[in-house]
Amino acid sequence: MASVIATDRERELARFYADVAAADLQPLWTQTRNLMPNEPTPVARPWLWKWQDVRRLCERAGRLVPIERGGERRVLSLSNPGLGGLPFATSTLWGAFQYLGAGESAPAHRHSPGAIRFVIEGEGAWTTVDGDACDMRPGDLVLTPSWCWHDHKNGSDQPMIWFDGLDMPTVIALDAVFFEPHPDAAQAVSGRNVSERLYGGRATIPAAARHPAPHSPLLVYRWQDTDASLAALLAESREPMATLRYVNPLSGEAALPTLGCEMARLVVGKRTRPVRKVGSSVYVVFRGRGVSVVDGVELEWAAGDSFVVPSWAVVEHQAAERADLFAIDDRPLLERLALFREVQLDEPQKVRERFQPR
Amino acid sequence: MASVIATDRERELARFYADVAAADLQPLWTQTRNLMPNEPTPVARPWLWKWQDVRRLCERAGRLVPIERGGERRVLSLSNPGLGGLPFATSTLWGAFQYLGAGESAPAHRHSPGAIRFVIEGEGAWTTVDGDACDMRPGDLVLTPSWCWHDHKNGSDQPMIWFDGLDMPTVIALDAVFFEPHPDAAQAVSGRNVSERLYGGRATIPAAARHPAPHSPLLVYRWQDTDASLAALLAESREPMATLRYVNPLSGEAALPTLGCEMARLVVGKRTRPVRKVGSSVYVVFRGRGVSVVDGVELEWAAGDSFVVPSWAVVEHQAAERADLFAIDDRPLLERLALFREVQLDEPQKVRERFQPR
Amino acid sequence: MASVIATDRERELARFYADVAAADLQPLWTQTRNLMPNEPTPVARPWLWKWQDVRRLCERAGRLVPIERGGERRVLSLSNPGLGGLPFATSTLWGAFQYLGAGESAPAHRHSPGAIRFVIEGEGAWTTVDGDACDMRPGDLVLTPSWCWHDHKNGSDQPMIWFDGLDMPTVIALDAVFFEPHPDAAQAVSGRNVSERLYGGRATIPAAARHPAPHSPLLVYRWQDTDASLAALLAESREPMATLRYVNPLSGEAALPTLGCEMARLVVGKRTRPVRKVGSSVYVVFRGRGVSVVDGVELEWAAGDSFVVPSWAVVEHQAAERADLFAIDDRPLLERLALFREVQLDEPQKVRERFQPR
Amino acid sequence: MASVIATDRERELARFYADVAAADLQPLWTQTRNLMPNEPTPVARPWLWKWQDVRRLCERAGRLVPIERGGERRVLSLSNPGLGGLPFATSTLWGAFQYLGAGESAPAHRHSPGAIRFVIEGEGAWTTVDGDACDMRPGDLVLTPSWCWHDHKNGSDQPMIWFDGLDMPTVIALDAVFFEPHPDAAQAVSGRNVSERLYGGRATIPAAARHPAPHSPLLVYRWQDTDASLAALLAESREPMATLRYVNPLSGEAALPTLGCEMARLVVGKRTRPVRKVGSSVYVVFRGRGVSVVDGVELEWAAGDSFVVPSWAVVEHQAAERADLFAIDDRPLLERLALFREVQLDEPQKVRERFQPR
Repeated sequence: MASVIATDRERELARFYADVAAADLQPLWTQTRNLMPNEPTPVARPWLWKWQDVRRLCERAGRLVPIERGGERRVLSLSNPGLGGLPFATSTLWGAFQYLGAGESAPAHRHSPGAIRFVIEGEGAWTTVDGDACDMRPGDLVLTPSWCWHDHKNGSDQPMIWFDGLDMPTVIALDAVFFEPHPDAAQAVSGRNVSERLYGGRATIPAAARHPAPHSPLLVYRWQDTDASLAALLAESREPMATLRYVNPLSGEAALPTLGCEMARLVVGKRTRPVRKVGSSVYVVFRGRGVSVVDGVELEWAAGDSFVVPSWAVVEHQAAERADLFAIDDRPLLERLALFREVQLDEPQKVRERFQPR
Repeated sequence: MASVIATDRERELARFYADVAAADLQPLWTQTRNLMPNEPTPVARPWLWKWQDVRRLCERAGRLVPIERGGERRVLSLSNPGLGGLPFATSTLWGAFQYLGAGESAPAHRHSPGAIRFVIEGEGAWTTVDGDACDMRPGDLVLTPSWCWHDHKNGSDQPMIWFDGLDMPTVIALDAVFFEPHPDAAQAVSGRNVSERLYGGRATIPAAARHPAPHSPLLVYRWQDTDASLAALLAESREPMATLRYVNPLSGEAALPTLGCEMARLVVGKRTRPVRKVGSSVYVVFRGRGVSVVDGVELEWAAGDSFVVPSWAVVEHQAAERADLFAIDDRPLLERLALFREVQLDEPQKVRERFQPR
Repeated sequence: MASVIATDRERELARFYADVAAADLQPLWTQTRNLMPNEPTPVARPWLWKWQDVRRLCERAGRLVPIERGGERRVLSLSNPGLGGLPFATSTLWGAFQYLGAGESAPAHRHSPGAIRFVIEGEGAWTTVDGDACDMRPGDLVLTPSWCWHDHKNGSDQPMIWFDGLDMPTVIALDAVFFEPHPDAAQAVSGRNVSERLYGGRATIPAAARHPAPHSPLLVYRWQDTDASLAALLAESREPMATLRYVNPLSGEAALPTLGCEMARLVVGKRTRPVRKVGSSVYVVFRGRGVSVVDGVELEWAAGDSFVVPSWAVVEHQAAERADLFAIDDRPLLERLALFREVQLDEPQKVRERFQPR
Repeated sequence: MASVIATDRERELARFYADVAAADLQPLWTQTRNLMPNEPTPVARPWLWKWQDVRRLCERAGRLVPIERGGERRVLSLSNPGLGGLPFATSTLWGAFQYLGAGESAPAHRHSPGAIRFVIEGEGAWTTVDGDACDMRPGDLVLTPSWCWHDHKNGSDQPMIWFDGLDMPTVIALDAVFFEPHPDAAQAVSGRNVSERLYGGRATIPAAARHPAPHSPLLVYRWQDTDASLAALLAESREPMATLRYVNPLSGEAALPTLGCEMARLVVGKRTRPVRKVGSSVYVVFRGRGVSVVDGVELEWAAGDSFVVPSWAVVEHQAAERADLFAIDDRPLLERLALFREVQLDEPQKVRERFQPR
């Protein structure tokens, strides 16, 4: 206000706003454009976590922190600095690394948030999902869908590390979280890789399978298959990147209704066309080395690194050596709600800065 | 800690947690059960806004606040005290009252959040949606779906007040908000109540209509039809409440993919069975008088009042005189994401307290 | 063959064809283009049945033929002369007129073919469908979907006549006919026009209704609603014809999965654009007078007449006075099987002949 | 009639029936139960064609009959003796054997009936479908969906024989057949096994693939995959038979909307439970030896034989050595029309007769 002497109208307005607040109401007109900006203005920032940091801290956690009921898992979650201290990678996605030492178990529970596990290092562990023990090897994707019982067991003499992706921030935002510890530390195992034998065919399904559930009945997607499919897809493509989506074989829809999973293979030296989409992604570098530019921030990555692309950020990738990028996103959810958009840009973006961890 | 002298392990742990934080990571095990409680723990509280307060403040706003570009609308939004100052009715729903004075206009714009208008008082206004001017009378429901141009015009010599319901908190949480002001203050009107003439039949649709859009092509649902349908439904029912859902006539799904609209009629003196569901609701009392008990809080309501049922809250209604309750909810969204649950309880809940505004 | 003396090769071929036939095999190459002509070559012919003939014969049947178990119904079916004596209107559609005298009943049964009843004359009868007695008045459409129990009762002191449409020829061709007589002559009536009260709203449905069945839960569509919707649709249209489709309010799909129902209103004096579609139609003139040209055959019609448009026939309509044409077709079925095509032609067709009954 | 002297009523009825017929109408009551029997009464009979007969006649055709435009294909079709001379395996299914000599080509065309090819003998041929050359080896399934251009080329120096399955009888019954010869004898080949590389993954699809077409984008299903999936499925099952269904990877639905494809593996010596379903099947024995009992008729089969199960026939299988049975059926079509039923019977059926070819 230009003057210390308030006008009558100013005083009346001030009284009005006070009365509005006292009635637990708020005026829209003072905040319309903050609530509804022209385009998404995510607070999550383009960010990258180096594998060597993550790995070292995972190992320290392995020495220092037991896995117990209540804590449930030895997991370090990506905490995007833009989110004000929340343990989330983006506003809608949870990304984390889970460390399971030789012989260790993580107790059985279930929850309404859906989860995926993407194996980075080690083998000999398995995740039991509703009784089906799914063996885990590097590059494998394992689903623990909403409300399915699951526990992890490392049966090997080496530690294992995998990436955990969850829709948890969204399910929290929707006030829809349910959690239940299993009465036993570990579920009874009724079979091993059963879902793979039943639903792991190439466009063949058991004739008896009829009504698709909201999530995939196939619980594990093997790296060797993904690898071969990426190679075949890339062979057909003239693009610098070939991308696969993991789907529910009974519906062709995303493996989980709320969480998309993709794997992209980059051709060395070619830059992908700049693209922006509604919804965020968390990338995990499975193999290779390269850079991504996300809203002007250049992120240099190598195997094991993870990084975040916020909603509506412009993104381009370029591999320095053949690279495979695993990613989770919220696209299936946004598509179901008719809120998805994607735009290809003509011009490569300018690099504003190189990413610096804090 | 019981002792001021930290052990070695404590010091090591403290260093570890500091290093974790410095790497923009967070341990899950210290917060698992906060992130994933057994059941939804919404911060939104059962709350009620009295019509006399809302109406009086709307009128004061009408005198004090012009409708201008940027502010866009003269709207007072329900601000649930549990939400720490956010202008939202619940974590996922926006509820508000809009006041349009005699002869006034609210400028044309569009946004990705979807909206509904439920008319409380006055007539002679219309909302133009993508060129179709939809007349508004008490009890009518008007849709302004995601990304449709819309503006409001009060052509009468009396003010009008209606309830605005939006999925805005959800679309904000999903980083999916787009907004665009129309180049002109008001759109050109290409027709009047066209959608009603084309799609307002009883289970008949134009033969040429083929591919259902994500939202309803019918933009206005008339009170006289809703009234008649409620009466007919109640006549068939032995329940204390009959509830209609407004749908897209081309798909039978909710009129908007992200926002459910319902109208319930209560039989005088009968208490509804206690029920809880995932997802919140905002109720607007269209007619009648009664009480609702929401998680033990007794809310006494009359025509024009609005109140909130948070996610997973137990709710019961009882009318003191014949009552019609309009409500918005996030059920269509939760169903599409396979996160919806609903439970009927056997025992009526205990009333813990009577609602007191602050 | 040009010569009476067969060559060696001719004799060898003849022996070969004989051996093929003896092995219950057939050569494709001698009949490829008969089996697969360039376009559909239906044997059904454009044909018309005059109401005065139908009505007079219905009345004679009423005097001469009782309604009994085994015969089940007093029905005269349209027998297209192109179909070699079959009692079908087209290769895929059954059309017929049913006559129910004052006070008469037609016994309860159910069958897998789905049926519709479109009332031409009289009122005071009802069809009971799975316990729900649906009152019938001129212009009303009543569904008796696949495998629903149904019987008819004329409670008035006047005879009634309605049009019966069934998918029966298709269900016969698919070897999928089931039939079951009800243990009793008439079902118990559990309610009257219940489906109308529950599902007869304008884009509102009971909130409790969730999983759409393959057929509509609404069993009766009232003429007054159809009439009003046609008028509204025509008011919006600049076309010479407005057409409504009767749908399942829970899905927006055709009321029956195998049988489409439409009602078209013609503007006097305007000729519709010539169009051809895969699949046949049976039209029943509800009101008015006009001509249709079907594959060059001019059919002159008035109220109560019925006529046939075979698959892929070019069709144009023109009303001499305001006309409402009810029609059944097999479009929903063809669309579900991805076999539907429709083409609009630029030029009106030449009239080859005026229709002459035999 | 008991008396040679007709009564008045008899004369009146006779006149009435004559007048009805003259008006191109038919009484329903004299034929209700013929039109609608209690259960399906297919005219197709359980029948079997021995491979040695088929093969020998195929070879003779290869010597005697060239492949030419108009004839289009050198194909011997299964002509079920119950169908009165029609070249169809059942009322709804076409089954046939196609013989393509070394170096021969079958000209390019397309048609609205959908087709599958299941390879019995030989390799080195390919079917080009909309430009994509699909290599064919024994046990492979190749799709030539509705209205896709296709031609066959045998690039090897050995003849090839495969089974052709089509929905043609149904598409004929629906008056929906379109056919178009390609302007050239052979299409240009734009790629080789492209669909396999793009869509042949295990529950992964190209991320760019969005809107499922009515038919599968995957055009070839390899035997080695089917074989492995059958083995895996059988390992999980305690049943005497494991059955896979070939699906569209973008939707999980049947590969073709009108024609189901299955492959079943039988455990030696175990009899399958008797089952009956609406809709017919044509079986082709890919490997092994055994018997099937179809409505009391015992059919003894070995590799290459084909046999028919009519609609609603009770069927049981038993293998004498490990057997793989390929089958086509009309189940996807019947399911889409809500006409499918399936019943498991408790008691094995009695064998009435052993099948004897004529």
